[in-house]
Parts: sequence; structure tokens; C-alpha cells
Amino acid sequence: MYGHSYTHTRTEHPDAASFERHCHTEYELLFVLHGHGDFIVEGTHYPLRDGTVLFTRPSEYHYVHPESDTPYERYVVNFDRSFVLNAAEGLSVLTPQDDAVRGIYSSAESVISLLRQTFAFLDRLGKSAPADLRETLLQTVVTQAVTALFLQGPDRESASGNETVSALIDYINRHLTEDLSLDRLAGLHFIGKYQLCRLFRAHTGMSILHYINTKRMALAAEWLRNGIPAEEVALRIGFRDYSAFYRRFVSIQGKSPAAFGKNQ
Amino acid sequence: MYGHSYTHTRTEHPDAASFERHCHTEYELLFVLHGHGDFIVEGTHYPLRDGTVLFTRPSEYHYVHPESDTPYERYVVNFDRSFVLNAAEGLSVLTPQDDAVRGIYSSAESVISLLRQTFAFLDRLGKSAPADLRETLLQTVVTQAVTALFLQGPDRESASGNETVSALIDYINRHLTEDLSLDRLAGLHFIGKYQLCRLFRAHTGMSILHYINTKRMALAAEWLRNGIPAEEVALRIGFRDYSAFYRRFVSIQGKSPAAFGKNQ
Repeated sequence: MYGHSYTHTRTEHPDAASFERHCHTEYELLFVLHGHGDFIVEGTHYPLRDGTVLFTRPSEYHYVHPESDTPYERYVVNFDRSFVLNAAEGLSVLTPQDDAVRGIYSSAESVISLLRQTFAFLDRLGKSAPADLRETLLQTVVTQAVTALFLQGPDRESASGNETVSALIDYINRHLTEDLSLDRLAGLHFIGKYQLCRLFRAHTGMSILHYINTKRMALAAEWLRNGIPAEEVALRIGFRDYSAFYRRFVSIQGKSPAAFGKNQ
Repeated sequence: MYGHSYTHTRTEHPDAASFERHCHTEYELLFVLHGHGDFIVEGTHYPLRDGTVLFTRPSEYHYVHPESDTPYERYVVNFDRSFVLNAAEGLSVLTPQDDAVRGIYSSAESVISLLRQTFAFLDRLGKSAPADLRETLLQTVVTQAVTALFLQGPDRESASGNETVSALIDYINRHLTEDLSLDRLAGLHFIGKYQLCRLFRAHTGMSILHYINTKRMALAAEWLRNGIPAEEVALRIGFRDYSAFYRRFVSIQGKSPAAFGKNQ
């Protein structure tokens, strides 16, 4: 009835390289039962531990970097805003501000024990339970998690990152439709292009160009969902050549622009 | 938006006589944080302990008998069927069968720890939270509790009672609109009227007549809610004199029949 997915996965020997780096139009709730490593949201690093709760909002670029020597077991729920029930749908945690921290991280015991109980309960329902009952219970879990994170607030002390990279990401996020050439970005931050690229890759694990392309296509996907015609989206995002936009979009999103349209 | 109430109460020196014996058209979920005593549903006794979960369906006559030497702290939620979310609304635990045990009792650790976490979460929200957010969270708690009780099933081993009284209550519940004179009831169970009355009072804490009157007026309230005119309800329930029905109804329900009508 609402867009959502839910997985409970255990990986005995996680290979960091095999974990997808992505940016999507859904919310994501990650609850770590067991693991060791890092979680990176747009250049901000959070420690990944037993009980870690991480929540990302639409279009926040994120990925996990688990250590290979520790099994990694987690629940992941992806959902649309409408999957959150009634009053909780209006909570500010669902709408990131421009200057807000990236992702919401929590290691508060009250949040962890709530999620542990409610996910364990969902597990007990098992695959044999009617799909609509599992969905109803998943909605209650997601609603409680969102409310708990709102009450608790983000745990900013656990976040770490590089100030220049953070400022750069902020700038890119706010100017996605403008000129984001390396010359321009390096000029803004008063460091050399080469140094800037190396610094960015060291803290985010990817090139600046890849980050910009991914964020631009995420914004394009959002506009398409809101019913804006593909040709206009291409122009807004800075592509005068529609077929170049189309190829870039498909290579990053894995689907054609039409698949994101209003009636899909 | 839906009919419900929710209380978290602690009584330092509970006086069993001050706890209401009642029978209502709502579901009731009782979660005992701390206490010692008994919970009685239509003559069936359950032990009341820290962590006890008790669930009664509409028209199940019930009351609590706490020991005065132990503080009694509990959550009580009363709610209509429509307060339970989506798919969970169809669970069989919400529809008692004629031959089912009375009330649903659970002392399963999995149910208790789920309720402890989710009620604690509701407490943390506090009175300062918006009313509609508290209501949304209460809905998630009730839905999870109903589902957990369905999964766990009733704990029949903790129930105790007298077989004759149970059979008598069964008979009364199934024949509320028929002749339930003491002569007839005693005849059915092949014991003397005096012995029957004494046995009933010993196991339920009330007279047979009081029990019958209460159950009849609960059935009347249900019919009124379903839109049946008060005069017809009176006749169905065995009252040829409407004013006698009216007085009896008000004395037991505390409100006039009109207050239970379809449009109230």
C-alpha cells in the first residue's frame, strides 16, 4: 500500500568494496545488530557498532564500510514519507535543513532497546505471517523509530570529518544546477585542484565528479517524481543535450527518466 | 480520531474494594509494571505480578484484586476495534469464541519486554508532546500488543477457577435473553439454590443476580451502539416494562440508553 522494503541480513565476512554507495529518493533506517566499521553520509563519518542507529533522508549520499574481520548483521528499512503514520509524518527529523548534520546517528540506549525489541518482534512474525500484517507492524516500527530519533535528536559528537570537505559538499549540494567545475570549486576554497581532489577522495571514497553527478541525478529523479517533464529536468540540471542527460541518468539511476515519472 | 483512553497509574497502598468491577464495550489492555494480587475475568482467576499482561474483550466482566501491602503500578489502555491498525484489526484474538478462555493472559518474556519498551517510550514523550503524536504512538503500541498476544496465544496454565461456576457463567452468557431465574439455574447444575449462590459469590466476588444484570445491560449497550431502538432493546433483553429497563440500564451503565445510540 505504501512504498517500502525491509531486510534483515547477516554477512559473515563483509567485503567493504561490495557495499553499494548510493543516493536514493527514499528514507533509510539502518539498525546494526552486530558489526564494526564506519558509516559515511556525504563525507561525515560515524562509527558503526553493535546497536548503531543510522537514519538518512532522501538524496543523502551514504554507504557503509564494515571491517572484514567482524560479521555484519543489520536491519535496513527503506520507506517513503507516507509510510510513517499520522502525526509522526510531520516531524522535523524527516525534513533536513540545509545546515543540518548529515544523516541522523544515535547510540542512545533508549532508542536502541526500543528498536531491538520491535525488530525482534517483527522477526518472530516470520515469513509465514500474512504480508499485510507484517507491513502493518513494519509501519509501527518505523513510526516509533522516527519519533525516538526526533525525541533523542542527532548524536553530533560521534560525527567526524574534514572541514574543507564538509564546506565543499555543502556548496555542491546548494548549487547543483550551477557551474561546479573543478576550477571554480578549487578557487572557492583557495586550494589547488589536485589537492582538492585528493582530499575529497580521502574523506568520501569517491571523486568529486562522481559525487556531483550522483547528486544531480538524485535531484533529477526527485523532480521527475514531482511530475516535471524529463526535457525540462535535463535543462534545469544543466544539460542542453537531452541524450547526454538520458545516458548519464540511466548510468547512475539504473532506470530511464520515464520510470521515475509521476504515473509510475 | 478513534475512541481510546490511556493511563499510567501508581497506587502506593491499593485498596481492593476501591477497584471498579466492570464490563464495557471497549477492549482493555492492562500491563502491570509492579503489583501483587489477582485479576478476575468472569470467574477465571489470573495471578497479578510484575510484567503481567491482561487483555479483555468487549463485555468480558473483569476486575483487579491487588494486595494492599504492595504498590500497584500499571498501564491501562481502553480502545475500540478501529484503533488497532490495518491488518492487525482482523486478528482472531479480537473476536472471542463462545468456548474460548476468558480474557487473554500472558507472562511471556517476549511480550513483556516489547510492552515495557514501547510503554516506556510513550512515557518519554510526556504530556508536552502534541496530542496527535501521542495518539499515533499509542496506536502503534496497541497494535504491537494485540499482535504479540495473537502470536503468543493465551497462557491457559495460569488460569484457575471452579468448574461449576465456569459452566454456569458459560450458560448465562449464552442465554442472556432467556429465563435465568435461580430455580432454573440451580436445576441445570443439580445443586441447591443456596449452595449455588454461595459458590458463585466465593469465586466471582459478586451475586449471580448482579452478574446477570451487568451482562444483560452490556449486551443492551452493544445493541444500542449498533443502532437498535431502545424500546426494541428492552423487549429483546426481556423487559416488557420500558421504564424498569431504563432504570436498570442507568443504574449499571451510569448513562441513559440514548447516550449509547448510533449517533452519539
